[in-house]
Amino acid sequence: MADSTEHSPEQRMERLRDALDEGRLAGVKRALGALHPAEIALLLESLPGPQRKVVWGVVPVDDQGEVLLHVNDEVRAKLIDSMADADIVAAARDLDIDDLADFVEDLPETITQQVLRSMDQADRRALETVMGYDPNTAGGLTDTDIVTIRPDVTIEVVMRYLRLRGELPKHTDAIYVVDRYGKFMGGLALSQLLTAEPTKLVADLMRRDIIESVPVDMPAREVARLFENKDWLSAPVIDTQDKLIGRITIDDIVDVIRDEAEHDLMSMAGLDEEEDIFAPVADSSKRRAVWLGINLLTAFVAAQVVGVFQGTIDQVVALAVLMPVVASMGGIGGSQTLTLMIRGMALGQITSANSGVLLRKELAVAIINGIVWALVVAVIVLLWFQNAALALVIAMALVINQMFAAFSGFAIPLALKKLDIDPALAGSVVLTTVTDVIGFLAFLGLGTIILL
Amino acid sequence: MADSTEHSPEQRMERLRDALDEGRLAGVKRALGALHPAEIALLLESLPGPQRKVVWGVVPVDDQGEVLLHVNDEVRAKLIDSMADADIVAAARDLDIDDLADFVEDLPETITQQVLRSMDQADRRALETVMGYDPNTAGGLTDTDIVTIRPDVTIEVVMRYLRLRGELPKHTDAIYVVDRYGKFMGGLALSQLLTAEPTKLVADLMRRDIIESVPVDMPAREVARLFENKDWLSAPVIDTQDKLIGRITIDDIVDVIRDEAEHDLMSMAGLDEEEDIFAPVADSSKRRAVWLGINLLTAFVAAQVVGVFQGTIDQVVALAVLMPVVASMGGIGGSQTLTLMIRGMALGQITSANSGVLLRKELAVAIINGIVWALVVAVIVLLWFQNAALALVIAMALVINQMFAAFSGFAIPLALKKLDIDPALAGSVVLTTVTDVIGFLAFLGLGTIILL
Repeated sequence: MADSTEHSPEQRMERLRDALDEGRLAGVKRALGALHPAEIALLLESLPGPQRKVVWGVVPVDDQGEVLLHVNDEVRAKLIDSMADADIVAAARDLDIDDLADFVEDLPETITQQVLRSMDQADRRALETVMGYDPNTAGGLTDTDIVTIRPDVTIEVVMRYLRLRGELPKHTDAIYVVDRYGKFMGGLALSQLLTAEPTKLVADLMRRDIIESVPVDMPAREVARLFENKDWLSAPVIDTQDKLIGRITIDDIVDVIRDEAEHDLMSMAGLDEEEDIFAPVADSSKRRAVWLGINLLTAFVAAQVVGVFQGTIDQVVALAVLMPVVASMGGIGGSQTLTLMIRGMALGQITSANSGVLLRKELAVAIINGIVWALVVAVIVLLWFQNAALALVIAMALVINQMFAAFSGFAIPLALKKLDIDPALAGSVVLTTVTDVIGFLAFLGLGTIILL
Repeated sequence: MADSTEHSPEQRMERLRDALDEGRLAGVKRALGALHPAEIALLLESLPGPQRKVVWGVVPVDDQGEVLLHVNDEVRAKLIDSMADADIVAAARDLDIDDLADFVEDLPETITQQVLRSMDQADRRALETVMGYDPNTAGGLTDTDIVTIRPDVTIEVVMRYLRLRGELPKHTDAIYVVDRYGKFMGGLALSQLLTAEPTKLVADLMRRDIIESVPVDMPAREVARLFENKDWLSAPVIDTQDKLIGRITIDDIVDVIRDEAEHDLMSMAGLDEEEDIFAPVADSSKRRAVWLGINLLTAFVAAQVVGVFQGTIDQVVALAVLMPVVASMGGIGGSQTLTLMIRGMALGQITSANSGVLLRKELAVAIINGIVWALVVAVIVLLWFQNAALALVIAMALVINQMFAAFSGFAIPLALKKLDIDPALAGSVVLTTVTDVIGFLAFLGLGTIILL
């Protein structure tokens, strides 16, 4: 049995943590040897600062580059900070060009120069090319290490060439066909090569409908969607002149997909998906403070609204008791619509053509649920306070607030997107402000009219 | 240039929507022809019910199986409901075994029997095997369509065998070596085959450290993490007797990763990640009503707490005005810790070894931010109400609530997990209840003691 089936990753991690707790550095070293760089990266992320330093000190130099790629941005910056320049250059040595481009971005200029000087000319030029592309486009994901052939040779010649060439770049599942000017013409899957008649010409076998190219400036998000939709393992990348510049492989796409989905989750709580869970208290406090401060502003807007009705509350104190019910129901209803919208927009499900229908549906749901729960609340309030007018007031306020909540949950993300503000980040703050303000206004306003 | 670079997916979708809006069915049909099944699936998801039916009616029969795989569970169930039995059987015909197993799960028993009868014996047996595994394990993701070879032959023989065999199964990047009893011995990457000396023996070239196997009962989540960590494209799956039963390919893993990340986002708003955004109003209302009802319960718990202090509010009505500020700050602070925990638990960053350090860090952050914002709020309240005692009360309540919020955000997901309840689903409801109750209790309680 292979090592990975004997011991699950969890078990191997556990063993390492035990060694760490007992302070056996030799044990830590041995346990690290059984881990993959990505597992070491996860371990480092889950270690508090001081222990993280100890473990990083014994990570094999050959693994350091890969480990740095797998930790999140914040942890990476801290680890690099703690390294000697020569070690950073050494860590960079074994990385793919596209990974190296990511890595170099976080380095101080002087070390970047050292890294570049340590490379041979071809690699250096390739790296400079990739670094020239926006990291959030196909170009930024491009690995330049590819195998190309000409269309006018036979499969047999290709096979001989490959054997001569030796080991293929990692994750090669296809080789690409280019003309003498480097223009992309098509591709041949390795499985095709293996099953084809040796005497056939490459030109007759290459497929442009299967091996499709991606333009270098396509946003990474769209590239990921293409990979998902078409079940690609890799895709050639071409520049505006149709010249083949490299390929994107699925492993980098998996990272894009994971980051994209996590971004929405974390943003909705005002967090960064690259956040180090063991960031120093001072750093975490500073970042969170901003979010709390923004929310404080909106809370005071809601408080202002309540303040207007102090006189009413003074006479009917039950209104104060029931305020949290109105506000919370609006917030819940609105955030359901908001989450649906944010996900739908990310997946491309929501367009100008269907948004009208969606709004009507969300409003209908809000009205139905508003009425249902308004009735329930009215009965409870009637029993609790023996006051039919109060029950009427809260019921009406609930229905009104559900409707505004659904409308806001629908309209806010669309408006924010138009303004180029991330809906996942700002959506919930704006939404809560609206549902609180409308909820209090409706409840206390109706209370003033009906109860006084 | 390939078709996909001439027209972006968005453009092609747009063209289809135009045809649909103008009611040109021939145009719809033509536009559908240019779309990939996954794109058709996205389109169907983003169409309201009636239009969805029209488009589904003109989707080519050959694509229907693939399209059904790509739509979410809810939409799939509705589409299948609308199909004739014979069409369902036809749609199933071209699917991979692992996809077919997913697909068949949603079918009524009688149609499943028809599908099984329409298959040849080998495929039927394979399907029955895969259907026997839990869909959330490696077994449920396993495709049984693989190429196997024996260890005691030369590369040349293998190459001849592959050419004879013809086309390899989709996404084949490696062939597997088994002994005469079907036991897994190792694998050979296609790129190895292409570059190896033809006279070498398979046994000498096969790698067990690169082509690692996955046990059939490993949870899908763990399998996905292995793929991510080790950058695999595919992996052989073995049963408890070490027998090779098939392979898992990265395209199915991408779905697992996407679902997992989306599950947390949607659950936190009480939504299902498989939800159809154009579900009939009645269905949506029913599902959302449950969530609103649960939240209503917790809101009334908070209202009860406020109710206890009616006498206090009656005398100091400013307390009612400031209540929303205390509750909202607690909710925000707590949900930041909660989100961090839910993500960290999903990624495996949080363990029993490091959770103590994490709790201390989160508490420290809460205390610092509690004090900072308590001071700010105190100044605002002092200016607004000219009441130093009131300012003191709200400041103390804020600090207390931030601490409880951080503790709850930390402890609730861990407790829920112990109880086998999904923290992403239940976490935010429980958290809000705690922060509301503690917030009102601290604020109004201190108010009663200090202000009366």
